[in-house]
Amino acid sequence: MQIELINTGAELLLGRILNTHQQWLCRQLADLGYLVTRQVCIADDAPQIQAAVRDSLSRADLIVTTGGLGPTSDDLTRDLIARLLERPLAFDPQVLAQIEQYYAQRRRVMPASTRVQAMVPAGARVLANANGTAPGLAIEVNPNPFRPETRRSWLVLLPGPPRELRPMFSESVVPLLLREFPQAAPYACRTLKTTGLGESLVEERIAGPLGKLVSAGLELGYCARIGEVEVRLAARGGEALALVRQAEEIVRGLLGRLIYATDDGTLEGGLVQSLTEQKQTLALAESCTGGLIAHRITNVPGASAVFLCGLVTYSNEAKQELLGVSAAALAEHGAVSEVVARQMAEGARRRCRTDYAIAVTGIAGPGGGGEAKPVGTVFIALAGEKGTVAEEHFNPFDRETFKYVTSQQSLDLLRRALLPTGGS
Amino acid sequence: MQIELINTGAELLLGRILNTHQQWLCRQLADLGYLVTRQVCIADDAPQIQAAVRDSLSRADLIVTTGGLGPTSDDLTRDLIARLLERPLAFDPQVLAQIEQYYAQRRRVMPASTRVQAMVPAGARVLANANGTAPGLAIEVNPNPFRPETRRSWLVLLPGPPRELRPMFSESVVPLLLREFPQAAPYACRTLKTTGLGESLVEERIAGPLGKLVSAGLELGYCARIGEVEVRLAARGGEALALVRQAEEIVRGLLGRLIYATDDGTLEGGLVQSLTEQKQTLALAESCTGGLIAHRITNVPGASAVFLCGLVTYSNEAKQELLGVSAAALAEHGAVSEVVARQMAEGARRRCRTDYAIAVTGIAGPGGGGEAKPVGTVFIALAGEKGTVAEEHFNPFDRETFKYVTSQQSLDLLRRALLPTGGS
Repeated sequence: MQIELINTGAELLLGRILNTHQQWLCRQLADLGYLVTRQVCIADDAPQIQAAVRDSLSRADLIVTTGGLGPTSDDLTRDLIARLLERPLAFDPQVLAQIEQYYAQRRRVMPASTRVQAMVPAGARVLANANGTAPGLAIEVNPNPFRPETRRSWLVLLPGPPRELRPMFSESVVPLLLREFPQAAPYACRTLKTTGLGESLVEERIAGPLGKLVSAGLELGYCARIGEVEVRLAARGGEALALVRQAEEIVRGLLGRLIYATDDGTLEGGLVQSLTEQKQTLALAESCTGGLIAHRITNVPGASAVFLCGLVTYSNEAKQELLGVSAAALAEHGAVSEVVARQMAEGARRRCRTDYAIAVTGIAGPGGGGEAKPVGTVFIALAGEKGTVAEEHFNPFDRETFKYVTSQQSLDLLRRALLPTGGS
Repeated sequence: MQIELINTGAELLLGRILNTHQQWLCRQLADLGYLVTRQVCIADDAPQIQAAVRDSLSRADLIVTTGGLGPTSDDLTRDLIARLLERPLAFDPQVLAQIEQYYAQRRRVMPASTRVQAMVPAGARVLANANGTAPGLAIEVNPNPFRPETRRSWLVLLPGPPRELRPMFSESVVPLLLREFPQAAPYACRTLKTTGLGESLVEERIAGPLGKLVSAGLELGYCARIGEVEVRLAARGGEALALVRQAEEIVRGLLGRLIYATDDGTLEGGLVQSLTEQKQTLALAESCTGGLIAHRITNVPGASAVFLCGLVTYSNEAKQELLGVSAAALAEHGAVSEVVARQMAEGARRRCRTDYAIAVTGIAGPGGGGEAKPVGTVFIALAGEKGTVAEEHFNPFDRETFKYVTSQQSLDLLRRALLPTGGS
């Protein structure tokens, strides 16, 4: 089955925004066993949109477009596709009533330009938009004049705003998909997220032992980020699940504690779960990560059960007053030092009366580095019932990457401490 | 000039990762006046990569590919392009020496598989990789067999990891671009970021008054996100700069204080700048945003001059002990209330001895909502020399969107307070 995404929007090609639609839609489809084969992004430009849709119709069974359904003058997708398929647009009073209701509920005046969103190409199904004004459209192109050898294609037009697109996809598109494109063969996929080894070394360890399963149809893929490598195991057919399970067992045997999560799991999600299960609480004392660790932990629903308090002590005064870091330690070792990291962690744990506290202090840059402690230097400490441990890392990246990598190392320090036999 | 990006990687089509390359490269090119006309993403699959490169070579003057240069078995791009262009690959000892040096400097052992990265197609220029092992490649396809009517195309192959790709693009690709594709006409672009009005209402206000300039060649675009609308003004040709400047003046006259930043500017960046100029300091007391506001502010280089301390007081105890919120207020009004927001802001300001303090308390969900205070309810307070102001907002979104929108509203409250005549 060929599935293609067409994302339109000048802002995507100008690099103003990230294409979050691509990731989200690809992920949703992959989890259902439908793999997107191609994604293309073009501007809100009539000839380009028509060319891209025609091109995709010549190949794909399912085509999903995003954007271009809004009320402004650069929203062209609805009109262009109607013209390409030679389907006249007709005004749909029911759709207008829904849009009017949307504005009325919010006690806002409906701009006159909104009316265009109630125009529907002949034969198209309207996909209700509970979170905005532009309805989606689903069109069965049958016969498909651009791919005469096959029976048909489906064309699904979704609105651009993520909070409109996402519920519409889950509520309206998924049922349509499952009905119109039932899966021929079972599909299984498992992602193991690892930290601590580079991509080449991960492959060196596991590729050989997985060779037999690859011959039997296992798909093996790697995805490397700084300090993280994902191993993706997938298979299709009657033996898919068994193949993927066997492969996972082999990889777990070889990488063990380096695996910090599977599939959608995150380091912070796993930590909140472990802390909840072990009835342990956490406090944070962040300097150079500036609140990112707290942000990541509080992204996890239910974090409030284990995360009591975070202190972003950017100034030395805050480190002293809120965490009890000693003036002597700051004077003798500097704010970026193992001694201060330990005092911060112990101070946060004492102050917030938690079981654990993580502290980080380092130099995020671009300024502030020196010869002895260049930009990227960081000390991480973890205080717990059994005492305090500290690590020094060197993360010589740009400011935001530095913060992310440091937050990852900090969370991983606690993850390893919470493992059944402790340490790594 | 036609510019196309080809991003390869199963992880992109599986939705495992965001395509940050697209945004970054499009942005870099747009800032230089080169507009990407098409971006396509395909899997690491031989027939698809060859088809996509051939397709782009039939249209584009410049083609940039990302990924597929690494050492693992799913890295196919180098080989496939060499075959497509019928250019034999040759082992380049200089490239291998650089890779060996890269490993030696990091005191790591070079995996044997790395050697493949020293294979170079005939006639290709090697782009040095200071931050990784896979060099980039630049190939002048001249004559271009897939577009015989024109003289040539350039094909640039970049490695996948962002911290390798980005410096390589800036250091090696930009000079090549400026030399090989000098700009025919000046290009000007300006983005005005607004908050407080929906996309339709922004267009209703400005489209008419800008009509004349649009007829004269001004390109006008909108990009809407929750609570934010970007207005993009662009033009090409001798009058480009004058047109864009006139348009900006008109938009500023109509939207005024709703504009919070221009171009790359961010709300947090503008705030750090305003606070620095006005020699004012800031503290934060975050509950439902969980450290995100601190994270955003500390993403700004130089934030440490104005941001002294943030308190992520997730538990009621932390609100009482660290911020001095009264037990009576918590009991009578609940943690999510205007009274508690005000006490949090005043407590943080007093405690951290700053000029300003922002406090937020709300219900991020998915749990915790009730009839009187549903998920999405939030109170924001700003304490300053002149007293404390508070706002109630209703942000009924998913947890992460809730946090982002709330952080945006919180930062905007302070932005408006710092404007010359105060208020909004």
